[in-house]
Amino acid sequence: MIEASVASLAQLCGGRVVGDGSRSIDSVGDLRSAGPRTLCFVRDAMYRELAQTTRAGAVLVYEELDTPAVQIVVGDVAIAFARLAQHFHPLARVEQHRVHERAVIDPAARLEPPLDIGPGVVIGKASIGAGSMLMAGTVVGDGCSLGADCMLHANVTLYRGVRLGNRVQVHSGTVIGADGFGYAKQGDRYLKLPQIGGVVIDDDVEIGANCTVDRGAIGDTRIGARTKIDNLCHIAHNCVVGTDNAFAAACMLGGSTVLGDRVTFAGHVITGGHLRIVDDVRIGGNSGITGDVDEPGDYMGWPLMDKRQYLRVLLSLRELTQLQTDVADLKKRLPGGSAGS
Amino acid sequence: MIEASVASLAQLCGGRVVGDGSRSIDSVGDLRSAGPRTLCFVRDAMYRELAQTTRAGAVLVYEELDTPAVQIVVGDVAIAFARLAQHFHPLARVEQHRVHERAVIDPAARLEPPLDIGPGVVIGKASIGAGSMLMAGTVVGDGCSLGADCMLHANVTLYRGVRLGNRVQVHSGTVIGADGFGYAKQGDRYLKLPQIGGVVIDDDVEIGANCTVDRGAIGDTRIGARTKIDNLCHIAHNCVVGTDNAFAAACMLGGSTVLGDRVTFAGHVITGGHLRIVDDVRIGGNSGITGDVDEPGDYMGWPLMDKRQYLRVLLSLRELTQLQTDVADLKKRLPGGSAGS
Amino acid sequence: MIEASVASLAQLCGGRVVGDGSRSIDSVGDLRSAGPRTLCFVRDAMYRELAQTTRAGAVLVYEELDTPAVQIVVGDVAIAFARLAQHFHPLARVEQHRVHERAVIDPAARLEPPLDIGPGVVIGKASIGAGSMLMAGTVVGDGCSLGADCMLHANVTLYRGVRLGNRVQVHSGTVIGADGFGYAKQGDRYLKLPQIGGVVIDDDVEIGANCTVDRGAIGDTRIGARTKIDNLCHIAHNCVVGTDNAFAAACMLGGSTVLGDRVTFAGHVITGGHLRIVDDVRIGGNSGITGDVDEPGDYMGWPLMDKRQYLRVLLSLRELTQLQTDVADLKKRLPGGSAGS
Repeated sequence: MIEASVASLAQLCGGRVVGDGSRSIDSVGDLRSAGPRTLCFVRDAMYRELAQTTRAGAVLVYEELDTPAVQIVVGDVAIAFARLAQHFHPLARVEQHRVHERAVIDPAARLEPPLDIGPGVVIGKASIGAGSMLMAGTVVGDGCSLGADCMLHANVTLYRGVRLGNRVQVHSGTVIGADGFGYAKQGDRYLKLPQIGGVVIDDDVEIGANCTVDRGAIGDTRIGARTKIDNLCHIAHNCVVGTDNAFAAACMLGGSTVLGDRVTFAGHVITGGHLRIVDDVRIGGNSGITGDVDEPGDYMGWPLMDKRQYLRVLLSLRELTQLQTDVADLKKRLPGGSAGS
Repeated sequence: MIEASVASLAQLCGGRVVGDGSRSIDSVGDLRSAGPRTLCFVRDAMYRELAQTTRAGAVLVYEELDTPAVQIVVGDVAIAFARLAQHFHPLARVEQHRVHERAVIDPAARLEPPLDIGPGVVIGKASIGAGSMLMAGTVVGDGCSLGADCMLHANVTLYRGVRLGNRVQVHSGTVIGADGFGYAKQGDRYLKLPQIGGVVIDDDVEIGANCTVDRGAIGDTRIGARTKIDNLCHIAHNCVVGTDNAFAAACMLGGSTVLGDRVTFAGHVITGGHLRIVDDVRIGGNSGITGDVDEPGDYMGWPLMDKRQYLRVLLSLRELTQLQTDVADLKKRLPGGSAGS
Repeated sequence: MIEASVASLAQLCGGRVVGDGSRSIDSVGDLRSAGPRTLCFVRDAMYRELAQTTRAGAVLVYEELDTPAVQIVVGDVAIAFARLAQHFHPLARVEQHRVHERAVIDPAARLEPPLDIGPGVVIGKASIGAGSMLMAGTVVGDGCSLGADCMLHANVTLYRGVRLGNRVQVHSGTVIGADGFGYAKQGDRYLKLPQIGGVVIDDDVEIGANCTVDRGAIGDTRIGARTKIDNLCHIAHNCVVGTDNAFAAACMLGGSTVLGDRVTFAGHVITGGHLRIVDDVRIGGNSGITGDVDEPGDYMGWPLMDKRQYLRVLLSLRELTQLQTDVADLKKRLPGGSAGS
């Protein structure tokens, strides 16, 4: 268990203490269930109310408020909380080299210790960087390379030739490097186009559970550094995703889609193939994209529009049947009758 | 093979026999391919027609009809059929304790016999209740607890600290307890919020194949008793799902969504995060939900509406281009010309 | 490494050589990164421009053009490229029988050599046809049968009684034969309908990663020969899919859906259950289908319409708020005022 004084935590996150800085904290939690050694955060009005009666030992706040807890005043509560939560729950690190006897490792694999290789892991002629953890049942094909400190959770599959940078995290059930969906149509039949490209995933990318990232048809599918991908997302062959993107659950990129940097997709955004989205585009949830997005900004919808415009369209949709009735009525009332259609 | 007379089956499901109750039945099936020892059901007009010429030995019916089969008249054909099908195809039960030699089990795990642990299963410092079956390749992390008579099909992944009640069924490829998608934004970068909550799944829940149920950020993600979830669904961190819910395939719950009891989602319903849906809400297929649903009832659509209203909107959508033409025409014909826009 | 002269490649794909047919080729690639022994293709104007300066040794073209590469003129560039790419990258074939010592195979399984069975594979009382490859971590249940030359990639799960034809490819994470989502409602509770049907997948089907194909409730779920399915698709219980279908990513078929032959779904098409789609139907991306489709043709939308009609509706949606404003204005301007609603 990690323990720290409120004062030292405040220092860690650049905050100012209000109250007894010597109080000892050993965990982070939420205001409702917190105990006297728990640190919590106060983000908005609902939380401010809870803070008045919380049993928490300390709270992160934007400004001083009415609470029995010791306060740490910070400029960004979310960032400060993330930092302190990481302090109490650091990423698992490999301290000593351990290869489970029930792992199956090709003699030609290059393993850079220390590693933590779990039972049932299968590694082909691949290279695995120091500090990486591969959990039970994960399969790494021939020709793969993992940088340092990667974490592949249980039952991940990497096909041959997938390259991961450093500190890449892949959650369970995710499949990287399966064949892209590429066929030539010959009469009624589909002729398979061998998918001979690879997959390159840069440093600090995190990919959620049960995602699929297909290998390139020719050339590589790429995901840029620090991009974060939620569960059940699909990245098709030859997509090139920039840095610092974030896709919430169930986003699907069609083949050869090219995304700039700092692109964000809320949940369940679908793109067609062969399109290009520039830097700093933010797409609202449940959207479908069929053409290029050439200007940064906020978009949403099916079809894709300016986000505010689409939110108005959604409101108008609720009135659509009424609108139809109104127009029918207008046609009747207009001098000359319903000549329209 | 299980055999039973029609009379005894009628007793099991509370039905009334019409015809020879001594006829022997050994299976359930459908009217087209049934043989003389097969029991079938007759649900509607199409089935009534098939019943006239079926070779089935017995049929479950709402009311007596014209068929060569012995009839069992019941108040609810579907329930009666489910009961009798369960009679002929009971859930697999663990009769004798079996731990496959190729399973890898932490010495600190608590295993309550009898269990059926398949090859390649990996169990950490977890506790597994009597009668549970864990099939090949399934991984159960440290700190997990399973109640009695659970069934984890092949290649399921439970991260650390997942708690299942009794008789929970999880189908292959499903991942429970992966990190929720939680980051604080610091400039352009995403700072990972450690996901330190757990997952609690109550008695008699069934979860389909290739689903994801994320662990809570702080506090637990919860799924209430008897809830049924189809394939490829996603339950995000800190969702609290009530009892007796049913979600068809590809439903996606955003983070911290709170659902009451007896909520049903038809296929492919997407919710935003931090919203609340009361008891007895039924959502039609292909819907998107972005706000609270405060009243029981039937809803559908994107945006979400009363279901009947939305079905009308869908009809109106078919006419939208015509409507636009009509309005353009009206504008031209109105005295004073098209001053509108 | 495979090497071939341009002339012999032209013969393989029925093309005509323009330039030095003796040039030696050892790979396929793209125009930008090609070297002097690489074959590329030129499909459209963008590629024609790249072809002018490519370093590629040979190019497949529709008609002679301005390029330093040797040209092979063909009637269909995509088909010719697929054939030649297959020549350089033939499907992996099992040359010698190999069963990894860490595979777990039921003594009653029938294995027809040669096979390539990877580590951690688990095979029940199943039969596996000659030439098949089962990669690491794949699980094949009792009663399954695989034809010749099947390929199950790593971490695939086949429940009991799944039947695959010849040359079926299944990508990682895919689950075939899990229980369909079938319950009878008894008061508030869901009573499980045992799913006692099977799954039958015909010759030359390819199924992508992390898909689910559920077993039939009664009777089988079927996928016809040569059908191709992309990642994260769901085929519910008792669907009957015809031959030569193609579904792009994230398509979801509701239960008992019956599809004809040569049906294509672009990405993310959702169908309700118990509906029927005839041969030669093509559905555009992001569509929802709730009724039968009785005529061949191109459809799209939610609700489903003629594709061209829906593309116009999408355009009209962009103007919907304006349309509403126009109608409000018309109502005001009409003699007699806004009597409408």
